[in-house]
Amino acid sequence: MTNANRFLAEAIALAFDNVRKGGRPFGAVVVKDGQVIARGVNRMLADSDPTAHAEMLALRAAGAALKSPRLDGCEIYASGQPCPMCLAAIRMSGIGDVTFAYSNQDAEPFGLSTAAVAVELAKPLDQQSGLNMSYCPPETRDEDHLYRVWQDQADSKG
Amino acid sequence: MTNANRFLAEAIALAFDNVRKGGRPFGAVVVKDGQVIARGVNRMLADSDPTAHAEMLALRAAGAALKSPRLDGCEIYASGQPCPMCLAAIRMSGIGDVTFAYSNQDAEPFGLSTAAVAVELAKPLDQQSGLNMSYCPPETRDEDHLYRVWQDQADSKG
Repeated sequence: MTNANRFLAEAIALAFDNVRKGGRPFGAVVVKDGQVIARGVNRMLADSDPTAHAEMLALRAAGAALKSPRLDGCEIYASGQPCPMCLAAIRMSGIGDVTFAYSNQDAEPFGLSTAAVAVELAKPLDQQSGLNMSYCPPETRDEDHLYRVWQDQADSKG
Repeated sequence: MTNANRFLAEAIALAFDNVRKGGRPFGAVVVKDGQVIARGVNRMLADSDPTAHAEMLALRAAGAALKSPRLDGCEIYASGQPCPMCLAAIRMSGIGDVTFAYSNQDAEPFGLSTAAVAVELAKPLDQQSGLNMSYCPPETRDEDHLYRVWQDQADSKG
């Protein structure tokens, strides 16, 4: 069994274990330098947490393990194809390699595919259905600009 | 001041407060029935958590407050334009109304825009740069299919 197959098998085993405990069928592991450094299973229902997908909890645990929000050089193995939230989180964390076992197509007959969400989110904001986005710029002077205040403080710390 | 302006002002105030504490310039509140039920600020650095954006922590707090991962009927007010991770999380939680004060365009000069990430994620998976996606379907018999096992268990619980 290759390392990749072993990591994927662990992610799937986590998913099966979560199902046995009444959770949703998703598991994930984060790997660095050939070692599993973090694990996650879907805990949306158990934790009343809309963000508690397996990959997200694995990313959070990986950040804690590395004491950094940056996960460059890590890989993630997930039992299911990452949803748009997880994929964005993975990308922004610096992870560049994603391996998954069950695709959206595999998930579709069971109502577990997030392909439709991805299609919607890929549209320009003003063409997405089901989401009203309102941009209400603050009326502030330039020196009170939130991001300028942040940058000035960051600069002052060198 | 309208209610919307009041909620947005609270999100911005949270962001300024987070900057004063050394955090990144982002805050968010979740509102239900005209009341703020949850708040969040960016805690990526403080918590070594790549997922700890203001909106994500506000969604998590809202789920805890409502004792449900579903946030249908809620609205979210964020100091900055939600990134793709947060936008996907917002959409999947059932929230349909998003109001923000500083756009990606406002954020661009400060290196805080996530517009480029959104452009990349909107492409088909095999055309995205910086992310290698591998689909490795498991070799299992149909009755061992992860999602079927989950569905059978869900069905048996009625």
